[in-house]
Amino acid sequence: MNNISVSIITIGDELLIGQVIDTNSAWMAQELNKHGFTVRRRVAVGDYAEEIRIGLDEEKKYADIILLTGGLGPTADDITKPFLCEYFGGRMIVDENVLAHVKHLFEKIFRRPGPILERNLKQAEVPDTCTVLHNERGSAPGMWFEKEGKIFISMPGVPYEMQGLMTDEVIPRLVKLFKRPHIAHRTLLTVGVGESIIAEKIKDFEAALPGYIRLAYLPNYSMVRLRLSGTGSNKDALENEIGKLFIEMQELVKEYLVTNKDEKIEQVVARLLTEKNQTVTSAESCTGGYIAHLLTTDGGASAYFEGSIISYSYQAKENLLHVNAATLMQYGAVSEETVKEMVTGALQQLKTTYAIAVSGIMGPGGATPDKPIGTVWIAVGNNEKTITQKMHFRFDRMRNIQLTAMNALNMLRKLIISSS
Amino acid sequence: MNNISVSIITIGDELLIGQVIDTNSAWMAQELNKHGFTVRRRVAVGDYAEEIRIGLDEEKKYADIILLTGGLGPTADDITKPFLCEYFGGRMIVDENVLAHVKHLFEKIFRRPGPILERNLKQAEVPDTCTVLHNERGSAPGMWFEKEGKIFISMPGVPYEMQGLMTDEVIPRLVKLFKRPHIAHRTLLTVGVGESIIAEKIKDFEAALPGYIRLAYLPNYSMVRLRLSGTGSNKDALENEIGKLFIEMQELVKEYLVTNKDEKIEQVVARLLTEKNQTVTSAESCTGGYIAHLLTTDGGASAYFEGSIISYSYQAKENLLHVNAATLMQYGAVSEETVKEMVTGALQQLKTTYAIAVSGIMGPGGATPDKPIGTVWIAVGNNEKTITQKMHFRFDRMRNIQLTAMNALNMLRKLIISSS
Repeated sequence: MNNISVSIITIGDELLIGQVIDTNSAWMAQELNKHGFTVRRRVAVGDYAEEIRIGLDEEKKYADIILLTGGLGPTADDITKPFLCEYFGGRMIVDENVLAHVKHLFEKIFRRPGPILERNLKQAEVPDTCTVLHNERGSAPGMWFEKEGKIFISMPGVPYEMQGLMTDEVIPRLVKLFKRPHIAHRTLLTVGVGESIIAEKIKDFEAALPGYIRLAYLPNYSMVRLRLSGTGSNKDALENEIGKLFIEMQELVKEYLVTNKDEKIEQVVARLLTEKNQTVTSAESCTGGYIAHLLTTDGGASAYFEGSIISYSYQAKENLLHVNAATLMQYGAVSEETVKEMVTGALQQLKTTYAIAVSGIMGPGGATPDKPIGTVWIAVGNNEKTITQKMHFRFDRMRNIQLTAMNALNMLRKLIISSS
Repeated sequence: MNNISVSIITIGDELLIGQVIDTNSAWMAQELNKHGFTVRRRVAVGDYAEEIRIGLDEEKKYADIILLTGGLGPTADDITKPFLCEYFGGRMIVDENVLAHVKHLFEKIFRRPGPILERNLKQAEVPDTCTVLHNERGSAPGMWFEKEGKIFISMPGVPYEMQGLMTDEVIPRLVKLFKRPHIAHRTLLTVGVGESIIAEKIKDFEAALPGYIRLAYLPNYSMVRLRLSGTGSNKDALENEIGKLFIEMQELVKEYLVTNKDEKIEQVVARLLTEKNQTVTSAESCTGGYIAHLLTTDGGASAYFEGSIISYSYQAKENLLHVNAATLMQYGAVSEETVKEMVTGALQQLKTTYAIAVSGIMGPGGATPDKPIGTVWIAVGNNEKTITQKMHFRFDRMRNIQLTAMNALNMLRKLIISSS
């Protein structure tokens, strides 16, 4: 069975001057992959008819399905719809269903005072050569075109609207239309060593992989994810084969293994805490709330998270966490003594099973001769013990914050496991 | 003067299955743009020689400069370097400078015990047809090739290393080599109305723009950024012209204007607070530390930020912020009364000029009949007054969290301005 290949074209000058980061493509790729479609290429082009034309002409050489996002909003910088009308032949007509939906949205949902603007009503105009895809979440409809045996689907670029269209309309229609091979992935996460050490551990395993199963290394923040990806026409045989290989691979890297699921370290921690019916708090200086944010990004956080104390200043460390003024004076805020007292204070204040405390110098300012940028003290503890670690990161502020959070969560993970 | 056009090719299967979001391209595009280069297309291709070949063959039709990132790590899934060697002719040789640098990194910086792995030493091998670009931050060097009058530059995909190479090597060399037109951008941020309302306000202005100045609408989280972009050979004339138009545009949208700089709302707040020598804290329930994180993302936060209290549970609201148990009982955590008391408690605890408090239901769980998902109460206050607002968001958890933070920061911005 052949792979059904997809190209994703994102339209918008903002992508080419770097004003926004493209998150749509990754989401779309995940969804397509899950359903057995292979994304072969992703392309970003500017808001010019000629650039969109080049994009379509090129991508139809390489893909069975071309998905377009962006360029469908109600403002004048959007030239996509008229261009598509011309590219696929035909003329613009008013789609009565879309018109009714636009009116419904503006009158009942957005509740904007005054009459609906002409430019909003224009969203109901579509080329008569397309099949209209209903956009429940917004006023710009999706459009499905066919040409030279290829399928072209245009969607708005607003992530929330694109996601609704993909889920409700695009994927169900594509799944009905194409017979697809089965695609299987298995991902694990390691921590503590770089990708070359991991590669040494599994080089014989890797060399012996069958041709239809590939291994990828995804290094990120002192962690390495390893992913096995396989393609096959027999779902059970493929799942069985990749499952066996995955167990073999886990065994080879077990000393660094964090999880054998495709999940983030904060999700591992959340899962462990929920399973054990335990709770956590964070006392954060240099991460400024980022650890608390990670712990509450997914739903269900209230099962294990009570709250946190972000103590950025000396004053806040003393008043909110009862760190001794003498400790701060003698050792400074970035010290083992201080993060230990922060753990104690946080456990007292929040009455949780565990507490994380971090204090460091993230840059670009704040360095001292004996504490350069990237110096961080981390402590994790419960009522029995507190473990501390000093780290030296050598990156920019945001990356230092992320590395601090990742390492703190990993220390917590180990403490949870060892405290069972 | 012609535009010098650039294509960015990112290499990696992980981009095509959506496992990572490509942030490199946006950063590269910004830097290139700043220096007068125009990014015409961005393409992501898989880790296969054939896909990289198609990428190079296609992009050299459209661009003067082709930048590649990814596929240069020390692990076996990287096939980029051998392919480039073949594509540009030549053979692999050991570069002595790179070898010395790799040894230095592993012995002095990474301090990994044991001998350097063969696969790490192999990073010093490069095609003899390239100019080697020194990668101070890592072991994989950059490589500069020329073919058919086009320039091809290959860099590792690790953002920190790519950024170092771009800044230290790529941009300085390109700037020396090409005479570029001047590129000017002006960006402002509005809040409170959608892009179609903004478009109505400025439609005559937009219609009268000269051909070499374009207007873009960038809607995001109940805010709209408007960007004027111009290209010209005479720098002073272009800056003068776009500057005048920008003032005109600001005047047209002044009732919604947040800032006339290309900055985020948290940066506006940080700037206002720093200017006025005032401070802020946050008392966060549903945002779980995200507001504190935004306030501390940039350096210099200690000038205006003392700390925050993340009170996720009822208990934390009572113990840390002294919200009355009776208030929580009678009105619930998601209520005007509760967020008001959270502001009062936070001001008392942190002794800041201002406090932000938020409490809401972010989803997917937690909804009640009278408080559906997306119901949020926000309060901002100082010792004189507290302003509250009830919001209804209708998105997924992460977007609801972000919208809550954006709206809270905007309410704070208004309070700071009105309190002068």
